[in-house]
Amino acid sequence: MKTFEEKLNDYAKLISEVGIGCQKGNKIMIRTSTETIEFARLIVKNLYELGAEKVVVDISDESIIRMNFENESKESLSEVPDYIVQKAKYAGEEGYGRISITGGNPELLKGIDSEKIEASNRAFGLALKDTMKYTMNDIVSWCVAGASTKAWAKKVFPDLDEEEAVRKLWEKIFFVTRMDEDDPVQKWRDHLDTMAKHADWLNEMQFDRLIYKSSNGTNLTVGLPKGHKFIAGDSKNAKGQTFIANIPTEEVFSCPDCRRIDGKLVATKPLSYGGNIIDNFSFEFKDGKVVSFKAEVGEEVLKDMLNQGEGANTLGEIALVPYDSPINNSKVLFYNTLFDENASCHFAFGKAYPTCVENGENMSNEELKELGVNDSLIHVDFMVGARDLEIVGVKEDGEEVKVFENGNFAI
Amino acid sequence: MKTFEEKLNDYAKLISEVGIGCQKGNKIMIRTSTETIEFARLIVKNLYELGAEKVVVDISDESIIRMNFENESKESLSEVPDYIVQKAKYAGEEGYGRISITGGNPELLKGIDSEKIEASNRAFGLALKDTMKYTMNDIVSWCVAGASTKAWAKKVFPDLDEEEAVRKLWEKIFFVTRMDEDDPVQKWRDHLDTMAKHADWLNEMQFDRLIYKSSNGTNLTVGLPKGHKFIAGDSKNAKGQTFIANIPTEEVFSCPDCRRIDGKLVATKPLSYGGNIIDNFSFEFKDGKVVSFKAEVGEEVLKDMLNQGEGANTLGEIALVPYDSPINNSKVLFYNTLFDENASCHFAFGKAYPTCVENGENMSNEELKELGVNDSLIHVDFMVGARDLEIVGVKEDGEEVKVFENGNFAI
Repeated sequence: MKTFEEKLNDYAKLISEVGIGCQKGNKIMIRTSTETIEFARLIVKNLYELGAEKVVVDISDESIIRMNFENESKESLSEVPDYIVQKAKYAGEEGYGRISITGGNPELLKGIDSEKIEASNRAFGLALKDTMKYTMNDIVSWCVAGASTKAWAKKVFPDLDEEEAVRKLWEKIFFVTRMDEDDPVQKWRDHLDTMAKHADWLNEMQFDRLIYKSSNGTNLTVGLPKGHKFIAGDSKNAKGQTFIANIPTEEVFSCPDCRRIDGKLVATKPLSYGGNIIDNFSFEFKDGKVVSFKAEVGEEVLKDMLNQGEGANTLGEIALVPYDSPINNSKVLFYNTLFDENASCHFAFGKAYPTCVENGENMSNEELKELGVNDSLIHVDFMVGARDLEIVGVKEDGEEVKVFENGNFAI
Repeated sequence: MKTFEEKLNDYAKLISEVGIGCQKGNKIMIRTSTETIEFARLIVKNLYELGAEKVVVDISDESIIRMNFENESKESLSEVPDYIVQKAKYAGEEGYGRISITGGNPELLKGIDSEKIEASNRAFGLALKDTMKYTMNDIVSWCVAGASTKAWAKKVFPDLDEEEAVRKLWEKIFFVTRMDEDDPVQKWRDHLDTMAKHADWLNEMQFDRLIYKSSNGTNLTVGLPKGHKFIAGDSKNAKGQTFIANIPTEEVFSCPDCRRIDGKLVATKPLSYGGNIIDNFSFEFKDGKVVSFKAEVGEEVLKDMLNQGEGANTLGEIALVPYDSPINNSKVLFYNTLFDENASCHFAFGKAYPTCVENGENMSNEELKELGVNDSLIHVDFMVGARDLEIVGVKEDGEEVKVFENGNFAI
């Protein structure tokens, strides 16, 4: 039985060695908040032990971000000084690997005027659009991983006291990232192999479209681009180094043809977006676009999200996750997309990963558009997995093949 | 009797209202470490209450800085990406007021190769030389203030346990910043008036040179430039807004003629420079330059400091502080220049404040040089005050006037 400290260090090691895949001479940039600074220090230590040449850490503070939004005007919050763009450009050009430690308060911006949030998100999205390619196209390695914090833990376990909640959330993170195992790195390698097999099978099938059905009302047909690729688990950066973009990761994902999405789609988990919760929501699609939507909680926030310019009201990611994933089996609703999306089949509104079509990373925006690969300022995942979800793949010649049955892979 | 929380809030308010002098519509940038983040949040709150339009907070982490220096090469530590320079430029051009919260571990970089520290300091000094003018020339408001931290408190009170030490250091900070008083803002205004009178008197005298003598061996003659100005307490930025650059501040300061410094100068307090302690040190000057020096502790660090290029081995600041200042009377050795320099007459090696000569802020580098106003990448204060320090002012016609007697102003 490993101690808490051993698991914590194994987890930092996994992120450093397997997640970002740090090798001798690599440069890494880490995003953390003050709440997760202790865990960030542990990662820094591990990165240097692996031979990192340079580690740069960007620290934000959620209390201060909240005060910024409470007190500043929409204009002030939408101002993006050039040095911020220059920094992102520098990190990309110099090949910095990017680690993001997530663990924020899922309701950090609750009660803030949603117009302010949307304006700020849009301004930063626009300013950083060009530099997003470094991670979206896997030019550099990147890895998003979670760390327990007070505000997050209290949202997940409201009945526990703060300290207990933080500890319990850590234990859940360790469980879903396989840190309880004796040799977590080997367990990860096995897990990545299984996912790769699913991806290979889907790539061989080259379905023209997938049809989603569930008793909750979901009845959606999603076209897939010609030459689409399903990706799972690990990726390679432009220099051929392997990394895992999400820890945990349970998804086999690709991009839809954003002009061929039709029918009804019902979300099955709440979504924390821009510091607000959106819950009990659903959409009607026609010819790829949302034609109507509703949400019992956070409808205004959802509306602002879908209005963030071209490509924001159609899908850019399709991801298959077994209902019986460790995260779902943990029975915890994380209110954090990294965890909840890896517990459930999901889609994302907004930008698609160009790597999801053959040679996509080398295509122009026009070429990608011709294939139906969506472009947008945003990329927001949301969850649709269900116990009785069925997915049928339809080939170009009309042949139908079962892909998902009772929420899990049928293959 | 005010509670701890009341004093803490009064102190944050003093820094916001009187220190940086925040007015409606101002933009402020704050530098803090993770250790002082709670106090930084309190300042942010106060700034917004005063009507700040925008507050940007830069957060560093000392544990990570230490790991950077332990693990990275001299070359890596000396790399200054352009976005850092762009940020400093942006802050200056946009008129951001700058608050620095000091409170770091005085021995953060103990045991690190001093060549690494010097190379890094020099690289950043060079890269940011042009943007230093915004604060050095009072173009924008700026304010340095302290906050108690574990590592600092344990250095000051090694015999107390951590929590007690932090609390006691806060109490000392409150005492020396007059937070124990019922109306600290009024006490500050009275204090600034007294200092202004000393400065006015010195400016009227327009001494050609000052002669320092003490039983510890100090026997130094320091020339003063024609048209020099002694400055005390508050300053005005380019827009005419008042601010206090240091809290606490007890000094009446100007710049020496860096070509006319001769004799022996003995430091009377240790100096924390670049994360290392220098102690029991002294210098011989001839024609403005250090011709020999020694230090019982940190001689290598001192040597590297004096070798940081032109102007590093001569003086750029001369400051008069009564021996009976509240800080000295607190009987605490702070190992932090902000506090120790305001407890003691001091000098600084390196760059002079151009505002210390008439119209200096509008002069070219050449014009300043002609007056003997020093220029350098560094600006490092060190303490020379003593119980028996005597300072005699000599006018151009040879008339001698007592300025300091038994460590205090003789006027």
